[in-house]
Amino acid sequence: MDQEFLNKEELKKFLATFPIISADKIEQLTKVIPTISIKKGTYLLKEGEVPKACYYVLKGLVRQFQIVDGNERTTAFYSEKHAAVSSKHFIDQTKSTFYLVCSEDCLLIKGELGAEVEHYNQFPELMEVTKVMLENDLNQTKENLSDFITSSPKDRYLTFLKKRSELQNRVPLHQVASFLGMTAESLSRIRKRIVSTD
Amino acid sequence: MDQEFLNKEELKKFLATFPIISADKIEQLTKVIPTISIKKGTYLLKEGEVPKACYYVLKGLVRQFQIVDGNERTTAFYSEKHAAVSSKHFIDQTKSTFYLVCSEDCLLIKGELGAEVEHYNQFPELMEVTKVMLENDLNQTKENLSDFITSSPKDRYLTFLKKRSELQNRVPLHQVASFLGMTAESLSRIRKRIVSTD
Repeated sequence: MDQEFLNKEELKKFLATFPIISADKIEQLTKVIPTISIKKGTYLLKEGEVPKACYYVLKGLVRQFQIVDGNERTTAFYSEKHAAVSSKHFIDQTKSTFYLVCSEDCLLIKGELGAEVEHYNQFPELMEVTKVMLENDLNQTKENLSDFITSSPKDRYLTFLKKRSELQNRVPLHQVASFLGMTAESLSRIRKRIVSTD
Repeated sequence: MDQEFLNKEELKKFLATFPIISADKIEQLTKVIPTISIKKGTYLLKEGEVPKACYYVLKGLVRQFQIVDGNERTTAFYSEKHAAVSSKHFIDQTKSTFYLVCSEDCLLIKGELGAEVEHYNQFPELMEVTKVMLENDLNQTKENLSDFITSSPKDRYLTFLKKRSELQNRVPLHQVASFLGMTAESLSRIRKRIVSTD
């Protein structure tokens, strides 16, 4: 089967998770919503560029990082479970402060400026779907921030293992460490202590 | 003038910031959207309670905190600039893990379960307004999380002074310290260092 067909099947499966979208509308939406396959290692956005699109991860993994004092600092992993890749830079059309790179081969929904408005006019139910997705993403991000504020490094790692279990074995440890605001050495010590007290 | 009238004027001013809502609709919406005045010190939500409402801060300040090892840990300040007080506990109707308390006399929009759906049916433009508000809030929260991950305690405090300048002189320092993930003593040292290098 050709890749384009398989991609559209993935998109259909995703749209079918929203009860508000009828089977008929799923067929129509599948035709108009653009998906793209991107190879591992490709940059979706670099620091200083104005984002031309936002994305939604159907399959794969996108990593967000900043360069701080010459070092990469990972600030987000976007996967099938935490999927909306957007930022104020896209909304405000300002220069990005971070990079977005595909850590795996990815299948993404691509949302381009302008196209969105047209889709909402044609499919009003999309607005409600977007609202639900935004609400979920906002609540998850708020909870991540609260966890980050209140947790010790060890608890932060345990929470990461539990809440982001889909990332298990997909992300190098030094990126996990950076994402949890600690050095690779600290994370390594924490992991040894967890294993030895098991 | 009576308080109810003044509250409705505040609500009108807020609705008027969204160009998509016509002057006519602003009048109608002002009648149906409930606002409440709440005294400083009142709890909107306690740990273990299932939230009955979400809120939007028109005036005043709401603080979110958790109890961790017997100590209050502030995880959010909701003010006129960062205004949407909601959580997955409200969406999922599960028990709250945190407290919400009015740190000042507040004027809030109160969003109750169910009422929302009715308003969206009657005023479809509200859905778009909600989407814009959610997007802004999500992007702001994502940025806060990135800042938190990548910043040193000192930079975190400098960012707080810049981005949350509206909280200046409204929040005790021990709550700011807790919100920035540090002890009151650390924050006090950082503040002294900043003053001495000015």
